[in-house]
Amino acid sequence: MRKDLLGIKDLSKEEIIHLLQEAKKHKPKVMDKILRDFNLKNTSLTTLFYENSTRTKMSFLLAAEYLGAYADDLNISTSSVLKGESLVDTGMTIDAMGTNVIVIRHGMSGAAHLLAANVKASVINGGDGANEHPTQALLDMYTIWEKKGGFEGLNVTIVGDIANSRVARSNIFGLVKMGAKVTLAGPSTLLSGNMKALGVERITSNVAEAIKDADVVMGLRIQLERQKAVQFPSLPEYARFFGVSQEMLTHAKSDALIMHPGPVNRGVEFSTDIIDGEQSVILEQVENGVAMRMAVIEYLENARDVVIPQTTRRDNVIAMAQ
Amino acid sequence: MRKDLLGIKDLSKEEIIHLLQEAKKHKPKVMDKILRDFNLKNTSLTTLFYENSTRTKMSFLLAAEYLGAYADDLNISTSSVLKGESLVDTGMTIDAMGTNVIVIRHGMSGAAHLLAANVKASVINGGDGANEHPTQALLDMYTIWEKKGGFEGLNVTIVGDIANSRVARSNIFGLVKMGAKVTLAGPSTLLSGNMKALGVERITSNVAEAIKDADVVMGLRIQLERQKAVQFPSLPEYARFFGVSQEMLTHAKSDALIMHPGPVNRGVEFSTDIIDGEQSVILEQVENGVAMRMAVIEYLENARDVVIPQTTRRDNVIAMAQ
Amino acid sequence: MRKDLLGIKDLSKEEIIHLLQEAKKHKPKVMDKILRDFNLKNTSLTTLFYENSTRTKMSFLLAAEYLGAYADDLNISTSSVLKGESLVDTGMTIDAMGTNVIVIRHGMSGAAHLLAANVKASVINGGDGANEHPTQALLDMYTIWEKKGGFEGLNVTIVGDIANSRVARSNIFGLVKMGAKVTLAGPSTLLSGNMKALGVERITSNVAEAIKDADVVMGLRIQLERQKAVQFPSLPEYARFFGVSQEMLTHAKSDALIMHPGPVNRGVEFSTDIIDGEQSVILEQVENGVAMRMAVIEYLENARDVVIPQTTRRDNVIAMAQ
Repeated sequence: MRKDLLGIKDLSKEEIIHLLQEAKKHKPKVMDKILRDFNLKNTSLTTLFYENSTRTKMSFLLAAEYLGAYADDLNISTSSVLKGESLVDTGMTIDAMGTNVIVIRHGMSGAAHLLAANVKASVINGGDGANEHPTQALLDMYTIWEKKGGFEGLNVTIVGDIANSRVARSNIFGLVKMGAKVTLAGPSTLLSGNMKALGVERITSNVAEAIKDADVVMGLRIQLERQKAVQFPSLPEYARFFGVSQEMLTHAKSDALIMHPGPVNRGVEFSTDIIDGEQSVILEQVENGVAMRMAVIEYLENARDVVIPQTTRRDNVIAMAQ
Repeated sequence: MRKDLLGIKDLSKEEIIHLLQEAKKHKPKVMDKILRDFNLKNTSLTTLFYENSTRTKMSFLLAAEYLGAYADDLNISTSSVLKGESLVDTGMTIDAMGTNVIVIRHGMSGAAHLLAANVKASVINGGDGANEHPTQALLDMYTIWEKKGGFEGLNVTIVGDIANSRVARSNIFGLVKMGAKVTLAGPSTLLSGNMKALGVERITSNVAEAIKDADVVMGLRIQLERQKAVQFPSLPEYARFFGVSQEMLTHAKSDALIMHPGPVNRGVEFSTDIIDGEQSVILEQVENGVAMRMAVIEYLENARDVVIPQTTRRDNVIAMAQ
Repeated sequence: MRKDLLGIKDLSKEEIIHLLQEAKKHKPKVMDKILRDFNLKNTSLTTLFYENSTRTKMSFLLAAEYLGAYADDLNISTSSVLKGESLVDTGMTIDAMGTNVIVIRHGMSGAAHLLAANVKASVINGGDGANEHPTQALLDMYTIWEKKGGFEGLNVTIVGDIANSRVARSNIFGLVKMGAKVTLAGPSTLLSGNMKALGVERITSNVAEAIKDADVVMGLRIQLERQKAVQFPSLPEYARFFGVSQEMLTHAKSDALIMHPGPVNRGVEFSTDIIDGEQSVILEQVENGVAMRMAVIEYLENARDVVIPQTTRRDNVIAMAQ
């Protein structure tokens, strides 16, 4: 009974489990084209990305296509006019064109919520500022669930730029909800004390200690291109103190999963041998990402067709949020 | 019996009425995905935009997709090579690739005609210089027709940068043809005296007078990004003397439609309360735009298949226009 | 029994003949939409172009679509993150998303081979540095085969920037293999002596002599935008000494074909009357390009489904090339 997917915070445990099971059903279709059944032929999905992310965008477009939907990118970056138009005006315009699902990425926290309140289309939050990136967390959770069989009592350690990371926030919401014990680690300048309130077990800048007995070690991308002020001396120094090497990894459980939302800065967040090693599930995360997005798109399309019957949708009054 | 849609000037009254009726048939399919019937599955449409317009481009791409066609954008702006190639050479190249419909937008008046004379594909003019933008006028006329039931004797006032506006020209051609009385208003520097020859009723720089008894008030976008010389002192001054406010609107009929091709500069062409008010049909214009483009694409595809049978098309001699 | 198409060098004579025959089967579908049969509905093709080429990219996208496949462009040029990521990491990421065919264009010779060794998807080389551009050579060979009925003993003269041309190299590999006699001509600074080892008949900077008795005269684009050092004085001087005019063409056979991979610099490689003249097959090359790419995509898709059964593909171990 859901029109939009805006954050993990709002999802119930039951909904998360449902999405994990649906993604499992879709996963074989990602690598085996013969299995794709194209049951969303009537659907049109549009990506509206105010921040560049070719990988996430491509993942959504392919997920839509493997379901049979039409998928288009509204290329904001090459549109001088759209840059001057407000998000709500642009969103309402695409909405009036009848697209059924809008995936939005925006630098401002709350952008997806603002859009969702103003359009009839289903909105999927593809990342809003430092707030949430729910499909990333869902694909991460899927990967853990598939490999570990569940979440209860699992030690998950997230290492990196925690304070600015919507990936971390969404994962914390989801993992805590599902019963995992989450530890956060990174340079103290990139840690945020108030994460404790979200149910996190431990926050520390000692990575070795944070990784101890971990079932999962999740790295976060150091986003050099976004850093405005320098929050750590240099990349080599970051790598030396906070990068995870094979030696450091010995503190974790021997079957700990190595995860990363990508793209990895090789030799920074993880050493190259770890990235390409047996414990790494980084490429499987990419595959699972398409499966999970198929699950999310189908879930919203089915739910919305029940909640908001197509034939009466045009009569809904849409409040202006501006 | 028509290969291309290049301008409203060439359309007969009967063709316009046919397109209005077809758009009406297609309109429910825009917002209700269940109704889309995808009857143009064999067709490929390509957009060839030498000027950026994400909105119009997206409207065409979605219209094509809702009909089941493949839709692609030949991204001129990122192609250094294409920029150096002549329009005719680029057009003949896409044509040789077998695309069925080409939508062109170009800064030069007559560009669509030049292209159409050199390709087998149907050409839709998506805006050529200050000449015509026929699908915009058709969607505007559809909106008026749907709301007012016809055109005969209707007072339509167009306010803004008339002299440089292909939207104004196409609307004038169409509305005069259908029996409406057109009034033009704007700063005298943005008015063109020879519009009178097109059958316009009145041309004035007094907006209050122009709006008197109007059934439709159509604003035109002030295109700051295109203005080479300054033709009015500043935006606030434009807004003060030529922007339409709620108070100004009292001169029009009480049920006058507020229309704008978008994107609106809020507080410039119209005050925000008018844009979001009950008389505004701006978002419906967007929806009607997709419906009308569906009608145009299908009309050309059907007409061409009769006039130029597919199997003999390759033998047609195409004269070089260069 | 082939996963990738990386170069003409690796193709057997039998494979080339098979592809020519398949392209002939597909050709009518390019211009006649009614004949398209969309038999690759399960397939997804992604273009990964590190060098801009709107024409080649569009040719691949349309070829895929005429076969019923989904076609997407991973737009590298607008992706700051992807620019920093290694080719292999980007390629493995797209591969993990389940796309079935990747078309790569890259400035580095061997890039397509590197990618192919690291992905499960079929890789088509869309041009790698100065090495190969196999689909261009195949479409050129198709055009010759269709017009001349075969290759044995045919005089083919290639004029232009031979040393830097992957188009020339791929054509030399293919034409020599099929029994044609290849002559190379151009400014001595743009000729490469070691082409002789590839089975070329003659290398000369006298264009008139090179063209003598030619059955085919193939021009190569002078790529002003790529030239780092000046290798000839100026375009007018290039045109004067190495451009092919109507007068120069009298040395060739009277029914010699005029070919060019496009876009042509009018008045540089060929005079305008030759480009638009009766012997020119330049636009047919474009049409044949779509047909040949349809043949290549279908060939790889069919071959791969036999060699690498879909259901076991995920278990293949993919060696890291980095």
